[in-house]
Order: sequence, then structure tokens, then C-alpha cells
Amino acid sequence: MINKPSLIVDKEKCIRNIRKMKAKADKANVLFRPHFKTHQSASIGKWFREEGVEAITVSSISMAKYFADNGWKDISVAFPLNILEMEEINALAERITLNLLVESVGSVRFLKHYLSSNINLYIKIDTGYHRTGIWCENIEEIQNVVDEIKGTEKTEFIGFLTHSGQNYHAKDEEEIRNNHGEVLRIMSELKDYFKKDNPNIISSIGDTPSCSIVEEYYGIDELRPGNFVFYDLDGFIQGRCDDDEVAVTMACPVVAKHDERKEIIIYGGGVHFSKEYIDTGDGNKLYGSIVKFDGEEWTPIIAGGYLASLSQEHGVLKVSEELFKEIEIGELLGIVPVHSCMAVSCISDMFTTKGEKLDLFK
Amino acid sequence: MINKPSLIVDKEKCIRNIRKMKAKADKANVLFRPHFKTHQSASIGKWFREEGVEAITVSSISMAKYFADNGWKDISVAFPLNILEMEEINALAERITLNLLVESVGSVRFLKHYLSSNINLYIKIDTGYHRTGIWCENIEEIQNVVDEIKGTEKTEFIGFLTHSGQNYHAKDEEEIRNNHGEVLRIMSELKDYFKKDNPNIISSIGDTPSCSIVEEYYGIDELRPGNFVFYDLDGFIQGRCDDDEVAVTMACPVVAKHDERKEIIIYGGGVHFSKEYIDTGDGNKLYGSIVKFDGEEWTPIIAGGYLASLSQEHGVLKVSEELFKEIEIGELLGIVPVHSCMAVSCISDMFTTKGEKLDLFK
Repeated sequence: MINKPSLIVDKEKCIRNIRKMKAKADKANVLFRPHFKTHQSASIGKWFREEGVEAITVSSISMAKYFADNGWKDISVAFPLNILEMEEINALAERITLNLLVESVGSVRFLKHYLSSNINLYIKIDTGYHRTGIWCENIEEIQNVVDEIKGTEKTEFIGFLTHSGQNYHAKDEEEIRNNHGEVLRIMSELKDYFKKDNPNIISSIGDTPSCSIVEEYYGIDELRPGNFVFYDLDGFIQGRCDDDEVAVTMACPVVAKHDERKEIIIYGGGVHFSKEYIDTGDGNKLYGSIVKFDGEEWTPIIAGGYLASLSQEHGVLKVSEELFKEIEIGELLGIVPVHSCMAVSCISDMFTTKGEKLDLFK
Repeated sequence: MINKPSLIVDKEKCIRNIRKMKAKADKANVLFRPHFKTHQSASIGKWFREEGVEAITVSSISMAKYFADNGWKDISVAFPLNILEMEEINALAERITLNLLVESVGSVRFLKHYLSSNINLYIKIDTGYHRTGIWCENIEEIQNVVDEIKGTEKTEFIGFLTHSGQNYHAKDEEEIRNNHGEVLRIMSELKDYFKKDNPNIISSIGDTPSCSIVEEYYGIDELRPGNFVFYDLDGFIQGRCDDDEVAVTMACPVVAKHDERKEIIIYGGGVHFSKEYIDTGDGNKLYGSIVKFDGEEWTPIIAGGYLASLSQEHGVLKVSEELFKEIEIGELLGIVPVHSCMAVSCISDMFTTKGEKLDLFK
């Protein structure tokens, strides 16, 4: 029986989410290479494999090793090359198809000296998010990195990769569609330009917001969304998914009630949820929404309360008088987390609604 | 060699911090019962034991079990009783002195039915933080809980416990001193009132801000600070510690540089730091400060840059032109975390500056 904060996964919803995204990629004739940083679970990886997925994305070399140990043979690490991990990279590249990300001539030169097995390299392109990557208009620098890769014995230039993280902060669907159109144009032009000398290169995109709402992927060869497998409160509020597509909830024991201020204390804090919040615009922070959870399934999000603050192990729910009366000490409540990827990174226990424990990368 | 985000602990600084706080408690003739939720490490626990510490505080039953497995015999769990963990509580209470926290008659009644070993109970008092506890002026309710405990066979009423979490958000030292004075008054009066029928009860307080800056503990019997062992950027900025008392830094590899916007990308993100930040008041968020780290020791905080944003695995440093030139891809930088307790909860690798791996509760 669940008696401390645990992330509960609805397998049926996950599989529906996987099938829907896979069907969309198939229809658009692009490779579906889902990002596994969201679930970080070999058990859930199997659900993907049963749907025909063979190529995946992860966010670190350590995570790549975990999934390689669990039978995955084609892994992209969507994070800038960390040259301090050469030993781990060489060991991994010996046994799987390893696709890494570079964005500078210097990093490729380093590989030239220290690489002992073959790897594939994407060049990371900044198409407007401005976090990492070579700015898409800087053709000269892109050409320099391409030349350096091609002049290096054990590296294969496989194409361009971008991440439109700005879509998570878009004000509406129209903004996402506009960003997406712009990204398609940039990535197609870039590929066309470099295809003359590199006929097999691909272009890869991957944020969940655009992958969730858009159907058109002209010029794109690979999709890497991750969050869609679980979605979360942020996705629901932003319109990326319906309430019944959110496939995770954090089960939290109720430990105290404070009638005078209609607050309910749950065992479930920053160490379980992270401290991601949604700014409600009225000076309050929303750290999660409440569902009723009977140990096997949860209701849609209920009105009359929300997770209003988090300390290390405590969560404070602010609730209506009516909801206050309904909730009892010793009850398990479900909290829909704001950001499921961060919640998975925080917690140590993850179960299906049927009580099956899910293996986790830690 | 460190090649991915790892929390580095300066053992000498920790021991100085432990000795200083222990000496303060000894001088005030109060029991020093440090909170181990900050370091969560059996290895660091030993450093406390070598300074004569025998009684500790933790924040969950799972953490109590971890430290009991590592030889600790007197543990207080400073979190409201979670009645769903009765099996674990009974198992622990059989082998150690277990001190739990209650704040309602209902919770004690539950213990009456399900407790199979003896435990000690504090009553949690709200002295102004308004997170948990019975409001300090509600003598009737406090009396009800005392009566219920005394009417229960296997529970011993040991006193009152409070946590002045508001001191973390105090605007200056004066506010902390004022809060502290008020808490001493409330806790002494409460103890005096109930001492007539319960001569052995104690009063317990424990936030690091007041324990760091105050010398006077009239009427208090037990101190439970935790954060002081490491301190952090928040503690330094708020004046709770000096720069050279901050005993942790997160070692992070530099993976990319972006000249056009003077940004440096580190491997080190929300999954390592949590997303705690300090509001700089000018619309920016400060997620950490930079130190130079040579693999063995780190410099004081350096000017000219800071950790300006975090995604899951990436951190973005905004730096001056000068600092930008100094920092190289493949270098390890140190980042002083905003909140060390949360960083410890997030990371999986913790080492001393001498390269010794520290055992971690996970």
C-alpha cells in the first residue's frame, strides 16, 4: 500500500499518448525518436518498444548508459557534448549507435584526439530559443563545424537538431504555430543548403507543445518530444492536452488539517515535486492541482482547492470549506504536478495504478 | 575525477560549523539535536558524532530508518505524524528512541489503536509561522492533545516543538531577533503552564537563522538547526554566515559558450539544484553564484557573473566580457547553490574536497 509520496502512472493513458504521437510521426513520415528524460524508466521504455519505437533521445550520458543497459541500441543525447565524459562516451559508443550534439569546432577537435569508437554528430542549431546552439544564420560557423566533423576520422555528420523551448512559454496556440512554421522554414533551408555536400543529413525537432498541436512537419526527418507521455498540469493549462491525457499524479498522505485557515497539510514537498509553479497572475503560485485518488484511479481535477506552497517535505493545500470537510487525515490525495519531468527526477518511488513498481534511472 | 554535476563538501568548514553551533548550545545549556535533512549523509553524521552529538532530527520516517541503520539511537522526526506509516513506525520504535510530532487528538487516537512499541511525542506548536501546529494561544486544544497522549499506554508526552520558518524570510537581523524573543516568551510560558502536571517536558526550537545570529535561549531545552552545517547562498546573502562558512559548492562542467550574448552553458540544471532562486529585485532570478574550483578547493564567490536560469540539465551563466574569456569549455566551475538542503535532495553524487565519496540517503 502506498504510504508516502509516490508518483502514480496510468499505463493506459500513457499508451494512448504514445500511440497518438507515434501515429502522427508515421503519418508525417518522420522518425519518432521520443525523449526518455520525462519518464526515465526502463519499464515505461518497454511500452514504447511494444509500439514499434527503436530509437530514443536522452539528456545525459548517464541516462544513455541506463537505457543501453536496458537493451536500447540507438540513442541520441540531446545535450551539448561534455568533453569530461570521454571515457563513458567511448565505452557506450562501442556497444550502441550513439548520436551526440556539438556546437563548436573546439569540441569536435577534442573528439578527434580522444574518440576511440565511431559516433554520429548532430550540430545543434539555435532557431530562436537562445539557450544553446549555433545561431541559424551563422552559416560560416556551421560550415566550420561541418568541415571539422568531416575531417575527423571517427565522427559522422548526421544533420541538424534544434529545440524550440520557447514554445513552453508561448501565450497561445497561434504563437506556437507561428514559431513552428518559422522553425520548419529555417531547418529545411539549412538542410537544403548543406545537403549538396552531405546528401544523407536529417533535421530533428522535438518540443512537446508544437508536436502536440501541429500536424505539419515539412522538411523535418525526426521528432523528439518527451513530455507528452505523461503531460502535466502545465500542459493541461496551456492546452497541449486534455485532463484525461494527463497520465501521472503524485499520491500524497494527508497529515494535518488547519480549520482556522482552511489549509490541509500533505506529506509531499519540494523534494518530491521540485518547486516548479504556475504564476496565477493574482500574486499566488500554483504548485499542483488536486484529484481524488482511490488507490487505483483518479478523478478529473477537482474544484475548490490547490497546492499553494511547498517546503522541503510539506505541501500546503488551500481549500474551500466544503472540500476541507471532505478530506481526512490519513487519506491519500492525488496532486497533478506542474512539471512531470521534474517530478520524476525528484521522486524515488513510481508505481502504475495497478500497483506495479516502475524501474527508475537514478 | 569529477565529470558531471556533483556536490562538493569542504569537511573542514563543516566541522568548524558543527563545533561553533555545538559550543553555542553547550554554553546555553540546551541539548543540541541537529537536523540531518540538510546533509542526509551517514558519512557526515559521523563528523557530528565525533563532536559528541548523539541525538538527531530528521524529516521523514524513511530518513529516520536510514540513520537508525547507521547507528543513531535517538531520533526525532520533525514532521507531522503520517498515520499511513504505522508499520515502519512500530518497527523503528522497537529498536531506537523515536520521538514523533502530533498536533491533533485524532492522530493520537490512531496511535492508541495501532502502536505496538513505546514512542515519545512532542506537540507541534504554531508560534507564528502558520504552516503546521496548534496555535500557541489555543490552550484548550493543546490540553486536549496532552490529555489524549497521557491516556494512551505507549506514548510519552515529552514537550513542545516549534519551527520559526518565517525567519528565513525576515527582512533583517532585527526582525529575527524580535521573532526569536517572542518565540522564547511563548514557549517558556507554555512549558511553565503545563509543567505543573508534566514536570519533565521540554521546549524545542530549531531554525538556522535564529540559531546562527542569537546567543540567548532562555526557557529552551533543545536546538534543532540543520542548514548551518553547509549553509548556502541564501544564508550568505541574508547574513547568517560568512562566505568562508559556506561548506558546499556544486561542481559543474562547462559545455558551451555563447559569445554574442556572453552566456556560458554548464551541465547542471534543475535536476541538480532544484529550482530555488533569489529574487534580485530587478526582475532577474539568481539561481547560484560562481566560484573557481580547482578540484580540491574553491575561491570566494567571484564577481562578474551568476547562474541566471536553469532548465532540466542545463544551467545558463550570464557573465562579464572578462569572465567570459577566462572560462573554457571542459572546465569545472563551482556554483554555490541557493538552498543546500534542496540541492542535496536532488543530486546523486556528493564528495569531499579530498575526493572521498559521501554516503547519501536516497
